[in-house]
Amino acid sequence: MQRALSVSRMTGNRSTFPDWYQAVVREADLAENSPVRGMMIIKPWGYGVWEEVQRDLDRRIKETGHVNAYFPLFIPLSFFAKEAEHVEGFAKEMAVVTHHRLKAVDGKLEVDPEAKLEEPLIVRPTSETIIADAFQRWIKSHRDLPLLINQWANVVRWEMRTRLFLRTSEFLWQEGHTAHADEADARAETLRMLEVYRAFSEETLAMPVIAGEKPENERFPGAVATYSIEAMMQDGKALQAGTSHYLGQNFARAQNIRFQSATGGLEYCHTTSWGVSTRLVGGLVMTHGDDDGLRLPPAVAPRQIVIVPILRERPEDAEVLAYGEALAKALGAQTAFGERVRAMLDTRGARSADKRWEWVRRGAPIIVEIGPRDAAGGQVTFMRRDQLREGEKIRSQSMARDAFVAAAPTMLADIQQSLFAEAKARLDSNIRADVATFDELADYFGEAAEDDEEVGGAFKGWVRAPWSRPSGPALEAVEERLKRLKLTLRNIPLGQSAPKGPCLFTGDQAVEEVLIARAY
Amino acid sequence: MQRALSVSRMTGNRSTFPDWYQAVVREADLAENSPVRGMMIIKPWGYGVWEEVQRDLDRRIKETGHVNAYFPLFIPLSFFAKEAEHVEGFAKEMAVVTHHRLKAVDGKLEVDPEAKLEEPLIVRPTSETIIADAFQRWIKSHRDLPLLINQWANVVRWEMRTRLFLRTSEFLWQEGHTAHADEADARAETLRMLEVYRAFSEETLAMPVIAGEKPENERFPGAVATYSIEAMMQDGKALQAGTSHYLGQNFARAQNIRFQSATGGLEYCHTTSWGVSTRLVGGLVMTHGDDDGLRLPPAVAPRQIVIVPILRERPEDAEVLAYGEALAKALGAQTAFGERVRAMLDTRGARSADKRWEWVRRGAPIIVEIGPRDAAGGQVTFMRRDQLREGEKIRSQSMARDAFVAAAPTMLADIQQSLFAEAKARLDSNIRADVATFDELADYFGEAAEDDEEVGGAFKGWVRAPWSRPSGPALEAVEERLKRLKLTLRNIPLGQSAPKGPCLFTGDQAVEEVLIARAY
Repeated sequence: MQRALSVSRMTGNRSTFPDWYQAVVREADLAENSPVRGMMIIKPWGYGVWEEVQRDLDRRIKETGHVNAYFPLFIPLSFFAKEAEHVEGFAKEMAVVTHHRLKAVDGKLEVDPEAKLEEPLIVRPTSETIIADAFQRWIKSHRDLPLLINQWANVVRWEMRTRLFLRTSEFLWQEGHTAHADEADARAETLRMLEVYRAFSEETLAMPVIAGEKPENERFPGAVATYSIEAMMQDGKALQAGTSHYLGQNFARAQNIRFQSATGGLEYCHTTSWGVSTRLVGGLVMTHGDDDGLRLPPAVAPRQIVIVPILRERPEDAEVLAYGEALAKALGAQTAFGERVRAMLDTRGARSADKRWEWVRRGAPIIVEIGPRDAAGGQVTFMRRDQLREGEKIRSQSMARDAFVAAAPTMLADIQQSLFAEAKARLDSNIRADVATFDELADYFGEAAEDDEEVGGAFKGWVRAPWSRPSGPALEAVEERLKRLKLTLRNIPLGQSAPKGPCLFTGDQAVEEVLIARAY
Repeated sequence: MQRALSVSRMTGNRSTFPDWYQAVVREADLAENSPVRGMMIIKPWGYGVWEEVQRDLDRRIKETGHVNAYFPLFIPLSFFAKEAEHVEGFAKEMAVVTHHRLKAVDGKLEVDPEAKLEEPLIVRPTSETIIADAFQRWIKSHRDLPLLINQWANVVRWEMRTRLFLRTSEFLWQEGHTAHADEADARAETLRMLEVYRAFSEETLAMPVIAGEKPENERFPGAVATYSIEAMMQDGKALQAGTSHYLGQNFARAQNIRFQSATGGLEYCHTTSWGVSTRLVGGLVMTHGDDDGLRLPPAVAPRQIVIVPILRERPEDAEVLAYGEALAKALGAQTAFGERVRAMLDTRGARSADKRWEWVRRGAPIIVEIGPRDAAGGQVTFMRRDQLREGEKIRSQSMARDAFVAAAPTMLADIQQSLFAEAKARLDSNIRADVATFDELADYFGEAAEDDEEVGGAFKGWVRAPWSRPSGPALEAVEERLKRLKLTLRNIPLGQSAPKGPCLFTGDQAVEEVLIARAY
């Protein structure tokens, strides 16, 4: 039986991991490039996954006391001038609106020079500055704190080299922004949301992560501390899947966010921000995809069970369709992951084999095929996407209809668990802790090829090593040495015990362990 | 008892309906102006209403076979050149991105002239052109049809005079875009979505509307036929609350959207588009608001039942809080409108009287107040927002706790119904059908004041009149005459019987009846 994808992951001379990734995104019908350079079209199946991501994460964000709001798409240029460090980080890649009208000149449309804006407007790359401006108006007293706001929105950061979901000039995300009366409360919030992201990523996306603090060179522009969750992709690279920032009083001072404390004094707030984006969909592909296409964790599959009727343009077709309809309805009355099972009957006019393979590539967790014999015998024939093959052979199972309906929720939970377990085993067994010196590190990862795309042909995983937490120029020197190996510092995992051995970079006494990896 | 708003609708010399509207939006904490001219910040309570709107409408859109997707925020300038008529309608009010980078010059941020885009990008005012471009790639055969796509997104149309929710330079909306094999199917889709909007508006927003076709001068740029639902606001003006367009083959020809038919020929698709926006929130205010603030239909109230505990910083406070907590939980286990009842205990540290009035102004459908006596006696004291006063006196009711919990779903349904009935009676009794000539029309509405804001001090309602459906220059003449009275043609109601009497404008034989009104 042929593989469903034209490009397989690790086999053949010419197929690289990036080629495979592109092929899965295309064949699973998730997204495509648009005529606007660097911006993607998220197709219905890909957007469906994002909707499930939103729904589950939105629930978690609200359960932790946050409310959603919406702020303007455009930010006046002058707002960025207020926060020097913040600008530094974004100034190079922002879309600028300079005019507000077009006009027809000799039958051709042109920008109307008379409609030039007095002050250019920036399409938000993130909303810290404009939300801080609102906070400054909204917050008067300690009774207004904590202020816990989230926004679901599109943002734009100009990118030269883009890749669907992973790096696009426009992306969708949520950005949380909160203000607190003191440092302790703001730091607790920062870690609370990091934990929300960890739980969401592992429980819902079945994507195991390591949560930790970013070293100072990887901090968000203007932040006092940045935390991340890092996931291991199937090429061994790290994907930063979410970040949470403690911003100290930096934004509060720049934008004058003050409150009257219980004792009557005026104090600056401590603020936080945190976000995840459509990049997560790319993470799902690189965590769970295989040589047949995507495999979706049932918790985020837009359709968890797809029923493909085998139709032959004969009278018994009606029976098969009615049987399928009733089956979809019975499955839809079941509950999995706290919600109705998402089942559908695929009635489109195409060959059933084509439809089956389309759902395999799209990663539907359970694919049912029913023909006249199944309908007559009250049977169901199905494939589990996580157990698609035995060797090269497709593994198809049969079950009595009622038993299948009753077993569906457990089976979906089992698929969710098995995808997580597979990814967790990969992560756990591919973090080397036995690399003691920089030379050993260089040996292990090898010299980097010039082109980023070529790197990672061989699976390398991550290194977790003791370090002395160098700062300033010393840290820049470390960064520079790593850069030559195409490596980066990912984060300093939370909850670690005392490091064993000296700093991998300086030979000094280590204070903690840091994760080193190639990354997206 | 004082009114909760500082501006009341119809009383006093200086208060106009627009002032009242502004006051309700502000006092109900729905939205505010942002530092970006013409763009609003949708505050948490306002955004919560929008989330309920989205959830309910999204369900209806999906139940009719549509799927969501996402298309780029920016559209290349050249795309607009393809559809001449379409451009005509939007060219004057679009935000134009011309650069993609800033740079620091003498410590000041400026647009980097070297980062000028080769082709300017337009921030989408609507997505017809870019979605049509995708359709042209996606559609190959009649088997790909109908293609039924919806998008939830932000759009930008530059506006000079803005008003929160009603007219803002950026707004949130959904835009449906579909392609069909023939005219009949596309026209059926256009009317199907109009009916979805009508049902949604009346059932969920409790906002009665009249559905009909727009006269040719009010068509969407590039459309063959445009339909709308029109709602009557409390000042008698019409609010266009949703539109649905049959675009014929215009966009398909401009963008080359063709399919191979069952017989093998290449044919152009017939396309439709339809949308509603955050403007609906403004419609809710102007339909249901009163002199105490907003009244929200329970189906779209972010919190349907709010419990305010009366706390006195005494030991029995704990008992009151526990009683309130348990009550919120019991209510949350009930079902209304097919979902869990949205109940909350407001534990913020403010005076309970202040909190009660805040929830009155925000329009929470049921506001419960509980003190130590209620807790001890297993009682609940509450106000229905739709029956807040008897004369000037506040109407507060008491009930045994368990009876209240059991009755809550029915009570919410009753409030929904009573708000609808009130608005429906207003609509039904304020459409005059006895205006026979243009002079009578002018007499009835009176000469218009120069400033739009001043118009409508006295409630006028609408006129439904027979007309001969003039076209071209004859229609323009009618439009011009109406404009002097600040009037517009709203729509030609669906399902009407033969008109009685001659055309109000021309005296010719009438072919149907048209709605005439002042409008937002």
